Amino acid sequence: MNYSIIRYILCRVLEFQALFLALPCVVAVYCREREGWAYVVVAVSCLLLGGLGKLKKPKSTVFYAREGFVVVSLSWILLSITGALPLFLSGEFSSYTDALFETISGLTTTGASILPDVEALSKCNLFWRSFTHWIGGMGVLVLILAILPLAGGYNMHLMRAESPGPTVGKLVPRVRHTARILYEMYIFLTVVQIILLLFTGMSVFEAMTLSFGTAGTGGFGILNSSIGSYPVVSQAVITIFMILFGINFNVYYLFWGRKPMQALKCEEMRYYLGIILAAVLLITVNICDGFRSVFEAFHHAAFQVASIITTTGYSTTDFNQWPEFSKTILVILMFVGACAGSTGGGIKVSRVVIMMKMVKNELSHLIHPKRVRQVTFENRVVNKEVLRSISVFFMAYAVVYGLSLLLISLDNLDFTTNFTAVAATLNNIGPGLNEVGPAANFAVYSQPAKFVLMFDMLAGRLELFPLLLLFTPYTWKRS
Amino acid sequence: MNYSIIRYILCRVLEFQALFLALPCVVAVYCREREGWAYVVVAVSCLLLGGLGKLKKPKSTVFYAREGFVVVSLSWILLSITGALPLFLSGEFSSYTDALFETISGLTTTGASILPDVEALSKCNLFWRSFTHWIGGMGVLVLILAILPLAGGYNMHLMRAESPGPTVGKLVPRVRHTARILYEMYIFLTVVQIILLLFTGMSVFEAMTLSFGTAGTGGFGILNSSIGSYPVVSQAVITIFMILFGINFNVYYLFWGRKPMQALKCEEMRYYLGIILAAVLLITVNICDGFRSVFEAFHHAAFQVASIITTTGYSTTDFNQWPEFSKTILVILMFVGACAGSTGGGIKVSRVVIMMKMVKNELSHLIHPKRVRQVTFENRVVNKEVLRSISVFFMAYAVVYGLSLLLISLDNLDFTTNFTAVAATLNNIGPGLNEVGPAANFAVYSQPAKFVLMFDMLAGRLELFPLLLLFTPYTWKRS
Repeated sequence: MNYSIIRYILCRVLEFQALFLALPCVVAVYCREREGWAYVVVAVSCLLLGGLGKLKKPKSTVFYAREGFVVVSLSWILLSITGALPLFLSGEFSSYTDALFETISGLTTTGASILPDVEALSKCNLFWRSFTHWIGGMGVLVLILAILPLAGGYNMHLMRAESPGPTVGKLVPRVRHTARILYEMYIFLTVVQIILLLFTGMSVFEAMTLSFGTAGTGGFGILNSSIGSYPVVSQAVITIFMILFGINFNVYYLFWGRKPMQALKCEEMRYYLGIILAAVLLITVNICDGFRSVFEAFHHAAFQVASIITTTGYSTTDFNQWPEFSKTILVILMFVGACAGSTGGGIKVSRVVIMMKMVKNELSHLIHPKRVRQVTFENRVVNKEVLRSISVFFMAYAVVYGLSLLLISLDNLDFTTNFTAVAATLNNIGPGLNEVGPAANFAVYSQPAKFVLMFDMLAGRLELFPLLLLFTPYTWKRS
Repeated sequence: MNYSIIRYILCRVLEFQALFLALPCVVAVYCREREGWAYVVVAVSCLLLGGLGKLKKPKSTVFYAREGFVVVSLSWILLSITGALPLFLSGEFSSYTDALFETISGLTTTGASILPDVEALSKCNLFWRSFTHWIGGMGVLVLILAILPLAGGYNMHLMRAESPGPTVGKLVPRVRHTARILYEMYIFLTVVQIILLLFTGMSVFEAMTLSFGTAGTGGFGILNSSIGSYPVVSQAVITIFMILFGINFNVYYLFWGRKPMQALKCEEMRYYLGIILAAVLLITVNICDGFRSVFEAFHHAAFQVASIITTTGYSTTDFNQWPEFSKTILVILMFVGACAGSTGGGIKVSRVVIMMKMVKNELSHLIHPKRVRQVTFENRVVNKEVLRSISVFFMAYAVVYGLSLLLISLDNLDFTTNFTAVAATLNNIGPGLNEVGPAANFAVYSQPAKFVLMFDMLAGRLELFPLLLLFTPYTWKRS
């Protein structure tokens, strides 16, 4: 293990964290909030620590997959630990654990909160909470790759460890250019959403924070009613942008490069939109009786389906009160998740579709054992290695799920609450059902259970293996 | 598809069904119950139908895997449909659907009941319910293979389609001898249990019915309190035999052949016993406060763990009232299930262990992508084809689970009830939690939901694919 290069990159991450923390400082100055001091202190500390730590250049630039996984995991943990400090120092969180839970929930774009009253927070804290979604959505190391001219061949290892999905598609041959194009599209879409939300009558602060939450598919709101008290047209804009941010960014790149026909052929996107359409229609029919008009039912169904499948987690209504059929659809969508290569979480549509195709193939294989049929996706035969890694992902997912469920059940909350709490954190969604439903929060859990859920949020965002590797003695052996 | 051989074997199955139905007739004569007539009528009809149908010999003996799957699935459906008739004709079931649910639950060794008052049933019906567990435990086609000299090379296809587990281990080179040895051991263990239960003071009827339920890992009781009102020593005997019937029968064959050292080395059995031990200890500590002594807590914990992991489903106490941690352990055990090659259901210990090993291998593979490590189980390298089929099994399992959950949620019962109802039927256990807990029954579900759960019970017993193939148009195409 090349420890010196790990130290060097972590120091770079600290410098970036200082940069991120400067933004809530600006908000605090503008709103004249004294909580801003906490951000100044932490930002300066990060800058100093990062600057000092990287004075000594790394001895070697040897960088393999394992260094990539370790750097990415440790970076996210470091960002969480330092990002929670200003929240805690501001005195608006009862404990550092709670501040840490909130920060990890923000960075991993989960949006699960332990706050019973969000509106009591200062503006700079609200801004920071939402901004962490934006950072975490596309990823910090992807940002560093886009900006810094890191030497050596380790770009791909970092990108692979941080980006979601079964395979990492480079848009252009060079990783650095890919990272830059991704961020350009990300910023562009976010700005468009902010402008549209301003047109619907939101303040600049509201439009920015809610767009950050949408872009990163996070879900922290700035009101206790989440998105419920905004006008219908604002909710509609958010619905559309949630769906947009759940699409594989390759599709936008194809549009960007004026290849719309190729973009529209994206198999994953088609399945994703098909699932959304089916779910919205089924839920609309199911909840129709509870609303004044079919349109209203459709509106809330569309918002909630978009929010859950993209793993955003905003809500316009307390879906915990909906009929069981609609709730079950939402629970299933929690697991499906958004497209690979988007900012959304969950298992990912591509994995689910490939899984279905594997089952279909098995059925024909059983009938004709000698006939070989291959799984195709996006018009290409899926590599056996990819099929194997998808299978193992499912298994690791089930193991982490079961263990988490068992550990948090020690708190003696009901099964539905526990089951959906793990689903909501491991898939980076936010709200679950019952006591962690959209009208409730995660404060019901004890400190140890919160640590389990924090682990799940990080494991979910990094797609399990980078974080699991931290706990494997094998990783730390000198080769 | 060779339809004539399918017809021929199904007629044989009908003849065997007539034989099975003769037993409750004997019980009815002995107890002087007029419900016995229903059994006489159905048995004679089966015998006539089977005899007439097989008069015409099959045109060809061509028999491939697909014929094997279709025969096994159709046999089980045929046994269910005819087996439900006497229950319905006796007038003790309110509808044929309910009688069918009860029969499928019996044959698949699930033990989920729709009866609020079991004690109101006549003795011959109680006997039949329990006896279906015994038939279903080892499998009907395995029995036919053991007895009838079926010509042609299709023995292995039938055995493979009906026996649980990722691979089918033939004990001896000839399938027919393997089937015979399996039944000899099955009968021997059942008889030993009956004798031991008689010693604890049970009546012959009680000892027989409860032993049938234990041997097949079924779980139908003959009292409303399940096993709760029997003396502690009887409960202890049942606990031990439940665990014994959950062990891979290969182990007994090794003992039988005087190779005890080799038998004790069985990796699956070691994991199985280890899981039981850990679960019992954790639950004992967790429920200790609710009982008068640690011994009593241990006794109930052991009984319940053995009952759930072997997918039997008997209960001595209402574990739905236990703390959430204990309930969550039981829910996880529902999925693990017993050993492959036993009469138990669930995913099977061997699959779970191989899955864990695959995840562990993946972690080391990620660190050293060039180093090839293989998964070993029972001191042998696991074939890639077996690993693939285990992966696909998990995926198919998840798909069937999700769809079933969605469909039964239309009944608007709570999530915990629905989730555990599917777990309890697809894993062939019996009771779940909340409204389908050990003190409740499946009568709360509507007719359509009951059909979904019946499908799950059959799919679970036959390990998904044989039943799924029935619904694949591909299966029915002429080759």
